[in-house]
Amino acid sequence: MSKKSKKISGNMLIAQSGGPTVVINQSLVGAVLEAKKHKQIKKIYGALHGIKGILEEDLINLSRESDKTLKAVAKTPSSALGSVRKKPTPKDCTKIFDKLQKYNVRYFFYIGGNDSAETAHIINEEAKKADYELHCFHIPKTVDNDLRENDHTPGFASSAKFVAQAFMGDELDNAALPGVKINVVMGRHAGFLTAASALARTYDGAGPHLIFLPERPFDVTKFPAQVKAVVRKHGRCVVAVSEGIVDADGTSIAAAYTKEVDSHGNLQLSGTGALGDFLVGLIKQKTDIARVRADTFGYLQRSFPGLVAENDAKEAFAVGREAVKCATGADVDGSIAIRRKKGKPYKIFFERVPLRNVAKETRHMPDAFISKCATDVTPSFLKYIKPIVGKLPEIGRFKRIPVKK
Amino acid sequence: MSKKSKKISGNMLIAQSGGPTVVINQSLVGAVLEAKKHKQIKKIYGALHGIKGILEEDLINLSRESDKTLKAVAKTPSSALGSVRKKPTPKDCTKIFDKLQKYNVRYFFYIGGNDSAETAHIINEEAKKADYELHCFHIPKTVDNDLRENDHTPGFASSAKFVAQAFMGDELDNAALPGVKINVVMGRHAGFLTAASALARTYDGAGPHLIFLPERPFDVTKFPAQVKAVVRKHGRCVVAVSEGIVDADGTSIAAAYTKEVDSHGNLQLSGTGALGDFLVGLIKQKTDIARVRADTFGYLQRSFPGLVAENDAKEAFAVGREAVKCATGADVDGSIAIRRKKGKPYKIFFERVPLRNVAKETRHMPDAFISKCATDVTPSFLKYIKPIVGKLPEIGRFKRIPVKK
Repeated sequence: MSKKSKKISGNMLIAQSGGPTVVINQSLVGAVLEAKKHKQIKKIYGALHGIKGILEEDLINLSRESDKTLKAVAKTPSSALGSVRKKPTPKDCTKIFDKLQKYNVRYFFYIGGNDSAETAHIINEEAKKADYELHCFHIPKTVDNDLRENDHTPGFASSAKFVAQAFMGDELDNAALPGVKINVVMGRHAGFLTAASALARTYDGAGPHLIFLPERPFDVTKFPAQVKAVVRKHGRCVVAVSEGIVDADGTSIAAAYTKEVDSHGNLQLSGTGALGDFLVGLIKQKTDIARVRADTFGYLQRSFPGLVAENDAKEAFAVGREAVKCATGADVDGSIAIRRKKGKPYKIFFERVPLRNVAKETRHMPDAFISKCATDVTPSFLKYIKPIVGKLPEIGRFKRIPVKK
Repeated sequence: MSKKSKKISGNMLIAQSGGPTVVINQSLVGAVLEAKKHKQIKKIYGALHGIKGILEEDLINLSRESDKTLKAVAKTPSSALGSVRKKPTPKDCTKIFDKLQKYNVRYFFYIGGNDSAETAHIINEEAKKADYELHCFHIPKTVDNDLRENDHTPGFASSAKFVAQAFMGDELDNAALPGVKINVVMGRHAGFLTAASALARTYDGAGPHLIFLPERPFDVTKFPAQVKAVVRKHGRCVVAVSEGIVDADGTSIAAAYTKEVDSHGNLQLSGTGALGDFLVGLIKQKTDIARVRADTFGYLQRSFPGLVAENDAKEAFAVGREAVKCATGADVDGSIAIRRKKGKPYKIFFERVPLRNVAKETRHMPDAFISKCATDVTPSFLKYIKPIVGKLPEIGRFKRIPVKK
């Protein structure tokens, strides 16, 4: 992590990468509005569709967007600059660095997950090798909450709120028309979003009754009996399943049993109902339970307008602003990590960390968050997630005083 | 439709039936709070899980629920009394009528769709035959918006709001990461909910680009070319598909190609991703489009807490209240229909209609709401739905002023 006192003048380039979130534009706008305050930043460019836009010189002039537009975009879900799934090759990185020089970019910000941090890291190393002063920052985002160094990541809380509210409603739906209901939740390697379903339990006996995380092996032979045991107790069963569940060998259940592969040969988890339908099939084959259904929450979890965790929007904005503050201050590179102050009330602070610390590898749910039975979360997880997600709708319930027969 | 001036004293029984909605408890609570004002109504009973609760004498005493609880329940999604999918046999109806007599029920309210209106109608006929004075009312609800006599039905607007917002976000998600995105929407026979996706088009070129309704035949051989044409124009394609789409012979596409049948042998449309996955398969086989995904909105559409159309909540409450007002006034039976006043601003009124008018048959999207090309809605549909659904989140977009290469 380098520091330089010299405040070099030049243009700024910002781009978005990976899966969209409902607050990723908050980070973009937080950075742009902060950049407008700094004289050493000349023009503010946005690259369309991440590094693809840089490689193809598909840039827009964000300096010419009004504050009114910027503020409206901040509140709008999905990536306003467009996104990309492309992971650059070393050759791409050299080419990207050439483009940055061509457009006199001295301030570069890449909003995304661990792959985006890796991209920023490689570009930064190129700049160093060439002795080109580039202030290069990664701005975190990911609904999966799987970035290292961060207490939690922008985008996660709003998606967790969606998952929690979806389960609150669906669990009441299941109480009204009892049966087995399986809901498949996003999170390829980390179970945080699936675990957030536990927030839906607002009364005794409320679901989800079983939570299956990618951090614990999923046993297809045991699953029907696990569901049956819950049905015996509650007369129904609501199940939260991560799209990324794996067997004891670490093989994805979706890969082993559903074989939904995209055109690049990569396993497709979102945008298909195959895993949920497979699990429904298991229950139908192995039990005599009449009503068994599955929903796959899909892209709604990350892009639903209006469904935003209040803290998430504020933090996403602030982390974008912080990156520009650092970049225009004494710092040259890094990723902005969100840390949490110990004790109450809930309060966060930012820390600049080296790009390589956030790049490549992801983090998982810690053991302390997963119950020993492996199908539930612990009170310490709830303590962790509640202040992040914030207020949820209140659920009213009848006392149900029976009438004498 | 009978009228009697005599105000008979007795107990009241209310129950909920069919698929839950986010506002069905508003109707329940509207009826109960109104009933509390009328001296001729003695005890207020709720039957758990619709007619199942009546047959099994599984009743709760709603007179003993506090106003605070009632108001909290009103705001809570799903059927607080539980629901049922059971359609009573003529023998069941005789038995239900016996139970009503046993508990001295003189005021009976059944909240539900056309099947529930039919049940209320049969019970009412039993009472008439026996010369037992029963004030028997059906209170409308259905997210499908397919009840005859009604301009629209309680529950529809909130689900339509969910569908519209889901498409607003998902269409921006698709703009960020282009490809083909198919979203399957509820509505077994009526396309209203799927058509509501059109509200998501907030700018030129916004999706959904194709809308497939059950009112027009779906041609699996033409579908890939229809999608391809949109991709050629917009570089991407967002598709809204009703779960109930049928071919030219009226055969359900889901039945013909996915064969998802529940334990009773009924075709299962919700709670499975099969139709969406089948349509994705069609595109993948017949085109070279790389990114093709489907989401099935499933039960989230009808049970999402906090996602309520303001008018819908008010109207659902008022329709429950109106039923009790009629029943305790001069009227003996009927269904409360929602009508709309001509002209602006948007205003509704209630009309008591005969039970048989709402029972059994459903209504479909009128031709005037469906465009000639069969894959879109008309301006007159938008004029119809906008005031019902009310305010949607605002979408901010950049002007995207390009930087000279």
